Amino acid sequence: MEIVRRIPRMKEIVRDWHRQGRTVGFVPTMGYLHEGHLSLVRESKRMADHTVVSIFVNPLQFGPHEDYDRYPRDLDRDVEILSREGVDVLFYPSAEDMYPPGYRTYVEVEGLSQKWEGASRPGHFRGVATVVCKLFNIVQPDYAFFGQKDAQQFVIIRRMVEDLNMNVEVIQLPIVRESDGLAMSSRNVYLSPEERAIAPRLYQALQLGQRLVQEEGERDAAKVVEAVRSFLAQEPRIRVDYVALVDPQDLEPVETIRGRALLAAAIYLGSTRLIDNVILNVK
Amino acid sequence: MEIVRRIPRMKEIVRDWHRQGRTVGFVPTMGYLHEGHLSLVRESKRMADHTVVSIFVNPLQFGPHEDYDRYPRDLDRDVEILSREGVDVLFYPSAEDMYPPGYRTYVEVEGLSQKWEGASRPGHFRGVATVVCKLFNIVQPDYAFFGQKDAQQFVIIRRMVEDLNMNVEVIQLPIVRESDGLAMSSRNVYLSPEERAIAPRLYQALQLGQRLVQEEGERDAAKVVEAVRSFLAQEPRIRVDYVALVDPQDLEPVETIRGRALLAAAIYLGSTRLIDNVILNVK
Repeated sequence: MEIVRRIPRMKEIVRDWHRQGRTVGFVPTMGYLHEGHLSLVRESKRMADHTVVSIFVNPLQFGPHEDYDRYPRDLDRDVEILSREGVDVLFYPSAEDMYPPGYRTYVEVEGLSQKWEGASRPGHFRGVATVVCKLFNIVQPDYAFFGQKDAQQFVIIRRMVEDLNMNVEVIQLPIVRESDGLAMSSRNVYLSPEERAIAPRLYQALQLGQRLVQEEGERDAAKVVEAVRSFLAQEPRIRVDYVALVDPQDLEPVETIRGRALLAAAIYLGSTRLIDNVILNVK
Repeated sequence: MEIVRRIPRMKEIVRDWHRQGRTVGFVPTMGYLHEGHLSLVRESKRMADHTVVSIFVNPLQFGPHEDYDRYPRDLDRDVEILSREGVDVLFYPSAEDMYPPGYRTYVEVEGLSQKWEGASRPGHFRGVATVVCKLFNIVQPDYAFFGQKDAQQFVIIRRMVEDLNMNVEVIQLPIVRESDGLAMSSRNVYLSPEERAIAPRLYQALQLGQRLVQEEGERDAAKVVEAVRSFLAQEPRIRVDYVALVDPQDLEPVETIRGRALLAAAIYLGSTRLIDNVILNVK
């Protein structure tokens, strides 16, 4: 595996691959890799001739009071994991090369970026859209892979790719969970043992909502949201940020559940923010 | 010359060219072509294996009270001209295909987009950056050509290309002028015969400024701006929008002229807005 720090070298590698008619799969990450990331890597290796993984903790998508500085990093371990998976290139640019002095261009997916996660994290999705646009231009992938845990992020990236006529197919893969149901996340490392023991309640609450809809036939979104909230409220150390039952395309709240809907939630456990979601499928 | 209306077809053509190792030159225009456009086309044909010209009157870059509806259009004439020049493809998309329902992604080059032209035309450069980003993704050119008349536009596009790591080289070519000095512009057709007779005063004023600096040694930007304004004020039918003497990189006003500077102006003649500029070169 080649570790590439400089943007021109990364462009050169993919230019050569494309000249040889090879396809490129891309998995953008912030590192501190877990099985969720690896499911993306494996699908990329299955679909594309070459796979590039990027590790870049993007300052632009963190708010001033968020966890940019303490976001977990372990490059040596990530390199070992990715080598073992047979990744061709790890792209590991510096923040100085990605945002040099005088940097001033931003991509905004309006409307989709201000609600839910965006309401709690102003500027977050502008940072995400901008860095993904840059990474796509640098890596020029045929396919790019994202996890369903960041469901709103995927909706925004898919919209950006379509709106800006980008030449990449974006693919979303299911959430990978710990054995007790907690969605894998690099941020889970922030949890104290007590918080870690409580954390699976987030997914349990979403499963409760899913059962209400898919087994008990509930179609009133407000009742489902309320049931999820009540379940979470039973644990006093959980503070609910939002519980949302929305259209998976435009993220607008649903009143009556028909077809597919996204049930998503964000909670605080101590100072750690956790997100999770499930897809509701109604015939 | 193939006339392409649909985006997927345009992408297909350039994908084939790139697979054959051919380079692509691109001249984005709003049509109603004049010799300024043709100088760009000819340079593209000189530099690249294939040349694509787009004609798209981009609604996103016009303000609500601007001239989108009456912007001059003459497709038949443009087709004839471009065929004669040996252009490979005319890309002529519809506004509905470029901005389908639900469209919501915008590219903003902050700071550079709000001053000068941007101050008089709020949202203009957001529209320009967004459409050029889209067109670059569709046409995937190796080279793209722009005229110096829209000097601020070029600074913004160059910044966007660099910031977003786009894979295109942007090239600016000199202003092409009528024999009396008026910068060629599709909008010159709006001028009444009386206004047309007065219009060359814009370039004359800029030339006066240029002489002050390059021949008479004036280095005080405020004095040069004042001289240009005074010259323009001699003609009561001219209303000055701005006269700017700025750094050609960041468009910030210059106090003392050193090295290269951009002397730019915008005026109204009746209801028609004209822009022009000259480069000042000081040893």
